[in-house]
Order: sequence, then structure tokens, then C-alpha cells
Amino acid sequence: MPPTDTPRFAILGATGAVGRELIDLLVGRGFDADRVRLLASPRSAGLEVSRPGFRGRVEAVNADAFRDVDIAFFSAGGGVSREWAPAAVAAGATVIDNSSAFRMDPAVPLVIPEINPHAVAGWAGPGIIANPNCSTILALMAVTPLKRSAGIERMVVSTYQAASGAGAALMAELEQQARDFAAGHPWTTDVSGRQYLFNVFSHDSPVGPDGSNEEESKLVRETHKIWDDDTVRITATCVRVPVLRAHCEAINLTLRSPMPEAAVRDAIGSAGGVQIVDDREAGRFPEPILAAGRSDVLVGRIRADRSQAPGIGYDLFLAGDQLLKGAALNAVQIAELLLGGSDATAANAETTRDA
Amino acid sequence: MPPTDTPRFAILGATGAVGRELIDLLVGRGFDADRVRLLASPRSAGLEVSRPGFRGRVEAVNADAFRDVDIAFFSAGGGVSREWAPAAVAAGATVIDNSSAFRMDPAVPLVIPEINPHAVAGWAGPGIIANPNCSTILALMAVTPLKRSAGIERMVVSTYQAASGAGAALMAELEQQARDFAAGHPWTTDVSGRQYLFNVFSHDSPVGPDGSNEEESKLVRETHKIWDDDTVRITATCVRVPVLRAHCEAINLTLRSPMPEAAVRDAIGSAGGVQIVDDREAGRFPEPILAAGRSDVLVGRIRADRSQAPGIGYDLFLAGDQLLKGAALNAVQIAELLLGGSDATAANAETTRDA
Repeated sequence: MPPTDTPRFAILGATGAVGRELIDLLVGRGFDADRVRLLASPRSAGLEVSRPGFRGRVEAVNADAFRDVDIAFFSAGGGVSREWAPAAVAAGATVIDNSSAFRMDPAVPLVIPEINPHAVAGWAGPGIIANPNCSTILALMAVTPLKRSAGIERMVVSTYQAASGAGAALMAELEQQARDFAAGHPWTTDVSGRQYLFNVFSHDSPVGPDGSNEEESKLVRETHKIWDDDTVRITATCVRVPVLRAHCEAINLTLRSPMPEAAVRDAIGSAGGVQIVDDREAGRFPEPILAAGRSDVLVGRIRADRSQAPGIGYDLFLAGDQLLKGAALNAVQIAELLLGGSDATAANAETTRDA
Repeated sequence: MPPTDTPRFAILGATGAVGRELIDLLVGRGFDADRVRLLASPRSAGLEVSRPGFRGRVEAVNADAFRDVDIAFFSAGGGVSREWAPAAVAAGATVIDNSSAFRMDPAVPLVIPEINPHAVAGWAGPGIIANPNCSTILALMAVTPLKRSAGIERMVVSTYQAASGAGAALMAELEQQARDFAAGHPWTTDVSGRQYLFNVFSHDSPVGPDGSNEEESKLVRETHKIWDDDTVRITATCVRVPVLRAHCEAINLTLRSPMPEAAVRDAIGSAGGVQIVDDREAGRFPEPILAAGRSDVLVGRIRADRSQAPGIGYDLFLAGDQLLKGAALNAVQIAELLLGGSDATAANAETTRDA
């Protein structure tokens, strides 16, 4: 897109969990806080948002709100994206959309900067770029190095997903249920409609005729699009666990050509945005609380799967911050890619807040 | 074993989480509460145990304690089992051991009554019978019907394991951490050494040279022994989640011969000790809080895995009470099998407490 020293941003969904992270990331990465416009539904208009190094007031989204905006981050759900993305584009903005509304549109790039930056090479804007599903981003950060080295024949993914994927309200309800338990009160279930503390449940997105829920289907089809390769065979089981903001995934892999375990470890460990946490003696492996607040996806439990031919089968376990690399950080890295001012690999090696 | 109308039992580890369930199950299933002797380490000797329909006092275990005992349930860890099982057998008892101490001993039957009751056919006692690992029992309850119908080529298992697998102390600490959170106190970590609430961590059993932890290795080798078939290829990732007493497992299957999805569902649904919970429209699937306190293993999310050849690949998700079918109930069912007074399939169809 046209070079600018002082890009102007808008955040639609500024009061949500991802919106808050977007503000912190833009400010923390040195963008001009005065050039970040906060947008939300009329219900939230007028709210003041105060974050470290940032103060702003939320404006109600309308067609004029995108005037003079270079990049508009959308993080307010698919319906809002479908309603307002055309207006933002008409006003000249590039929309980086965190919803699933446009991800499978053949005209819309679906981008993880470390993996397929070429999908937006020479981007002139305005237009829409889609940010992938959180579970998909985290899985592909860990696994793409092996695809590049050996090819991937098949992936079996089981997720352990945090509350944050459903937004700030579910995170708050999970915390409230811990207080309910301590006080001996009935569960507060306004958001989830269920006991979530001390429980695990199948991801509550709609289940399609093939028996997969939407989260599972996204993982398959978004991976195919990002890798531009629909020959990789994928199956997933997506599950919500009572964790606040970082997802885990157990991934079983079948490679196309054999790789020794040391080479698997080297390939993953040398990839940008990934950190190996795999100390078998100390029993230190990826955990949500180690990944929360960190840019890197933590990968561990890397081991040969002896149920497959030697060198072909591997198991691993990852943890990654759903709000950062799974959402806001990836979106900001896409913006940096468009603005030409950043190397996603280097930027991602930093930690954006204390873990 | 010799028929007796009024078998005499001992429970070694009577004050633990599994010990309490053993008492409740024996009383609830009509055995004579006066003929249940409670044993534990000298530290717990003298403690009074009061359960519905039962009052007893704990005796310190010693060589005399097994005199006149027909069946001794051991649930106090591998070290205690290795120390006291020989004395119990010498005193004429049959030991049903919940630890892993003797499971892989070729002379010791490893039994799930619904699956391999023939392993104790004609059992005369005294001797040792091993109760399998909880994750193994729950997986095989769901999957054995498909092995019988079509054969199983390969299983990829990811677990979501509750605190109860590590005992009553970890369950109490998880609850305490919820109270710590509500009060704004530092985490109580005496048992786990970590933040467990709002977190997920790799099963903390020792990791072997092949990178598998003990829990994962047990699932592979115990399955081979119970099925008497080491050609089935198995890989597992075992993970602890902040749940109190029921485990979940995501299982991806490769069958040896194709089966239509309806036949898969029929085979699982008609097996004793299993209940299908799989309402795609209502989004009702197995959850730990639905399985807690129930005898049956709940199985759902049954669906064709389109990453494999048609009819060969299936995914499913289960939840089962780790303390009941994963431990105490299976042990009591073994006892009933030896005593000849019970059909495990019918007994298991009942619920032992309100869910």
C-alpha cells in the first residue's frame, strides 16, 4: 500500500478482548496513539478507553468513521464485518478482519505473516484481508516448518481452547464462576449457559451435517487456503477448557518424507514466532499460563509417534495466546507487512508483556 | 473362586478418593457393610470413616489384617501394593490392585469385566488381579465394540484428565485454588507445585527416553494386554485439565475394515457400560460434569473422519468418571465377576449416585 510514516488506524470492536490487545500492540510497537480511532456499536459510543500510553473515546461506527483511515481492524463478529467492511473499503481503507466473514472469499487474502506473506505482496488497497481463526494460526505456526522440510500428509488435532476465544464476557464469567464456587453461590451462567469452571465441553459452534463443528471445519479449510494446498488431510476435535486466554493443541502428524527427530526439533525451533519449551527432565512443557501475554507460540512434547513408520510420525503439544498471535498480534503483523515497516519474524520474537 | 454368600472384603487405602468410592459401591451394591475391613498406613489408623450406610474405623495394615479376607482392594499406590500384596495373598486373599505395580506381570490378569472377563475365568484364588489405568479403561469401553465389529488398526488419543487421577489431595487443592483466586490470595500449591486453576499441563508422570510419559505408555501397553493384541498401533498425549473427577478423551480411529457411521453408532450404543450423548442440534455432548458420579462412560461427537478412506476413519469424544469406571467401579465389577454373582453389563447400566 502507499507508504506512510504515520498510518491512521481504526479499531471496530474497540471495547472487546481483542480490541484492547490491538490498542496495546499498536501503542507498544511505536505507532502514534493519536492516530488510532476507536469504533464500536452505538451502545458503546462515548465510553472512554484508558490503556497504558493511550486514552481515547469510543465513537459509534458509521460510514464517515472510516474517512482518512489507512487500516481498519475489525473485531466485532462476522455480522458487523459484513455490514461495515464495504463502507470502510469504499472510504479507502484496508480492512484487516478478525471474523470469519470473508476468510474463504477467493478474492480475500487469508494471511499469517510468517507463513504466507506473499498473499499480500504488492497490496495496494483498499480492500479486505482476513485474519485466520486462532486455532488455525497456532497450529500452522508450529507445523509449517515441517511442511516446508518434509511435507505434511495428515494432521490429527485436538484442541484445549480458552474462554478468550468467545470474548471478554466469557472470560469474566469463568472468573465469576470461581467466585461463585468460593462463596457457595449458584453458577453465574448468563454468557455460557452452563457450568464452565471445573468442566470441559465440545466447542459450541454449530455442528454441520458431517458432524464437525464450525471451529473444526475452519481449521481444515483455512489451513488448505493458507498453505494453498488442499491435499493435506486434516481432522480436528475442538474442545473448550476452563482457561482464560491461551489455547493448547495436541497435534499428531504424518510427514510426507521421513525426518529425524533432531531435525524436526531444529526446524520448529528455528522458525520465527515459535519457542520450544520441552524439558523432559524438569517436566516443563507448554502451558496456557506460560503462553499468556506472549507473542511466541510455545511448542513441546515433540516426540516420534511409534504408531507410524519411522521418521514419518510425530506428536507435539503447543500453547499460544489466543488474543495475541491467535488474533490481535497476527492482525497487527499483517498491517506492518502492508506498511512495509516490519519483519514479522523479528517482531514476533519479542514479548509484548510480561508473562 | 470358592462360592460364598457373604464375602469378606478389605480396602487398603480406605481414606483415599478411590477408597471412599469402594466403600460406597460395596454398600450400594448390597454387600454386607460389617464385612468390609478398612486398612491404611499407620498414620491413618484409628480414623473413623462414615459414609451413607457405613461406619468403620481404619486399622493399620499388617500381615494379620488379611486373615479371613476373600477379596482385598488395594488403592494406595504402587509401593504399598508391592509391599503388602504378597502378605495378602499368603493369607489367602485375592488382591484386586488399582496400582500399576503388577499390571504388566504376565502372571497377573488385567481386567475390564465388559471386555476380557475370560482373563479370570475359573479363578480359584488367592492371587493378584490388576485393575487397568483409568484412561485405558475409559478408552477401551468406547472403542472395543468397534474392535469386535471391524478391527482397529490405529488409535490417536488425546486426554483431558481430571484432578482425581492424582488423588483426593489434588482435588482439594484445585478447589482451594478457586477460593484463593476469589480471595485474591496467592495460589496454594502444596500438592501440585503449580497454578492448576485456569491452566492445563502435560500429565506429570515421568517422561521416558522415547518422549512418552508413563500415562501415555500405560495406555499403549495395557491396551495391548487387555485386548491380547499388540498389532494395534496407538499413540497418546495425556494432559491434565482443571476438572475434579471425570476424564475426557478425544479419540481418532482407523478401523481395519469399513463400517458405516450408523453401524459405528449402533455398536457403541449397544455396548454395556456405555451411553451415547451426541445431540448435534442441541449441542449436547459428553462433559465431565455429566459423567461425574455415573457408572456409564459417555460417548459422543461420533463422526466420520474425512481425512481417511470412507468408512475407515472415525473421531469420537468421551467422558467417564475416573473414580468409578476408571477405578473403584471396575475393581468392584471384577470382584463380582469372581464371586459369580453379577453380570457386569447389567450392573454397570445403573447409576451409583445422582449425577
